[in-house]
Amino acid sequence: MFFSKKWDCRNLHIYITGGSQGLGLALAILVAKKGAHVSIVARNQINLDKALIQLEAVRQSPSQLFKAYSFSLDNAEDSSAALHAASEAHGGNAPDAVFTCAGGSKPMFFLEMEEQDLTRGMVNGYWVQAWTAFAAAKQMAREGKKGKIIFVSSTLGYMSLVGYTSYSPAKHALRGLADSLRSELLLYGIDVHCFFPPTMYTPGFEEENKTKPAITRHIESTDEGLTAEQAASALLSGVENGDVHIAGDLITRLFRASTRGSAPRSNSLLDVALDFIALIGVPLWRRSVDKQILAHRKEHQTYLEGRGFF
Amino acid sequence: MFFSKKWDCRNLHIYITGGSQGLGLALAILVAKKGAHVSIVARNQINLDKALIQLEAVRQSPSQLFKAYSFSLDNAEDSSAALHAASEAHGGNAPDAVFTCAGGSKPMFFLEMEEQDLTRGMVNGYWVQAWTAFAAAKQMAREGKKGKIIFVSSTLGYMSLVGYTSYSPAKHALRGLADSLRSELLLYGIDVHCFFPPTMYTPGFEEENKTKPAITRHIESTDEGLTAEQAASALLSGVENGDVHIAGDLITRLFRASTRGSAPRSNSLLDVALDFIALIGVPLWRRSVDKQILAHRKEHQTYLEGRGFF
Repeated sequence: MFFSKKWDCRNLHIYITGGSQGLGLALAILVAKKGAHVSIVARNQINLDKALIQLEAVRQSPSQLFKAYSFSLDNAEDSSAALHAASEAHGGNAPDAVFTCAGGSKPMFFLEMEEQDLTRGMVNGYWVQAWTAFAAAKQMAREGKKGKIIFVSSTLGYMSLVGYTSYSPAKHALRGLADSLRSELLLYGIDVHCFFPPTMYTPGFEEENKTKPAITRHIESTDEGLTAEQAASALLSGVENGDVHIAGDLITRLFRASTRGSAPRSNSLLDVALDFIALIGVPLWRRSVDKQILAHRKEHQTYLEGRGFF
Repeated sequence: MFFSKKWDCRNLHIYITGGSQGLGLALAILVAKKGAHVSIVARNQINLDKALIQLEAVRQSPSQLFKAYSFSLDNAEDSSAALHAASEAHGGNAPDAVFTCAGGSKPMFFLEMEEQDLTRGMVNGYWVQAWTAFAAAKQMAREGKKGKIIFVSSTLGYMSLVGYTSYSPAKHALRGLADSLRSELLLYGIDVHCFFPPTMYTPGFEEENKTKPAITRHIESTDEGLTAEQAASALLSGVENGDVHIAGDLITRLFRASTRGSAPRSNSLLDVALDFIALIGVPLWRRSVDKQILAHRKEHQTYLEGRGFF
């Protein structure tokens, strides 16, 4: 740990999906301040233009390239086209690091979902990142570029609770993809990281609160959460340190240590200590959440009757 | 543990997808022997007919109903229609337990995949089970039936390695769905379980070996694996004991204990002991696998050149 050189994004080309707001934008500003070339991708051109103004405001050198690309990222073709466009501005070369920050969540009861709520959850939580990685991994391997691919999962990629049946499977899937891909891309010297942020106070959070069940909001009411800037800073410092699974707060760190699977550890001694805490703490947490849900049964029956479920 | 009554499938209606071969068929035979009514669903009518003959051979009582239904399960509509057909034979009532054993895997390198390899991985590993649960959870809740929904994930739902970029995300997603749904369905008294089998020597295994990369086969060469019968027996006894996450062998038990997330434990003392072993053992396992992959780099370059990747 103490002797290895930290990864430095200065003068590197950093590609960020979902880069026009929330975590993606905060990360774009952070790496721009550190002297990186930044490409951001999102759908909304107005948000992209506003984001570019914010990037210009923190420019460190006249040679830094800041570019914005409007693409939908929910399918393989457009995700590949977006990466291609950004590469063109750098002599056709793959970015040095690809951060897939795009995505969104629409929490609701499974029993109230329509078919498309479940499929959209997988698109907006998984495919919107997987397709970018699909294009980036191939391009990096072809070029022999020892680049980095960084996924953004969620604390809900480690655990789950009521309300997240469309989101948590997608975030678990990203973890599965990151762990599988890290293993495969060892063959090429390409690094794969995965970030597991907790609640972030971003435009996405406001959006998801519109559909979030009352019981879920109640359970989460004690969460502290992070600002987009705090989350971006945790993410970048995790990547700089070479951590494969990156957590941004203590709660997620406990879940990370206690759900490590085959992922490399960040700091063995600390992770063992966290695991001990989680060994006791996580079951207690779960029992208290289960109790809250069970206590909510009657109220929920009334709610369902009011919604005409039966 | 010692005082709670075991769940008993005698005289209950057990619905099993993928019930015409492999794990699903072995499970169907097992519960038929215990006196359950059994509905099996699969695509291939010939396999279904053969399976029915095997069920008849272990019939315990003339009143047992054994039925087979030919449906594709990769979409919401057909999955719901299959469940509806099976319910009709039981007075329109939901089955007492729904085991989603359908699914398949096609291991290959991420870098050699076409778009549809990745999407089919999610359909055959995730949606083929999620849609059945989607229909079953709603029907059970509407009827007030305190039933059971049992998913079949994989050891690769806890961890992953090279070769499983299309399969492991789907199996992780199932874990995420099971954990979210267990929490939501506490509201209705419906139980959710998830089984994580290791390598099973079934027709599906022979199928996946056709595309499995050499390095993946090499890493797995020391795995012991289970027969379909052993796996079915581990699955059923887990459900009988009320275990939420069910593992069929020691390796998976270690990964279960060390990736418990917010899932309830099976046996707290034993799980703590397993977690200690995993604390030391899993990182050693991972390092040895990483080494094997790195040692494979040169051979892999040659392979890719031969395939015209560059």
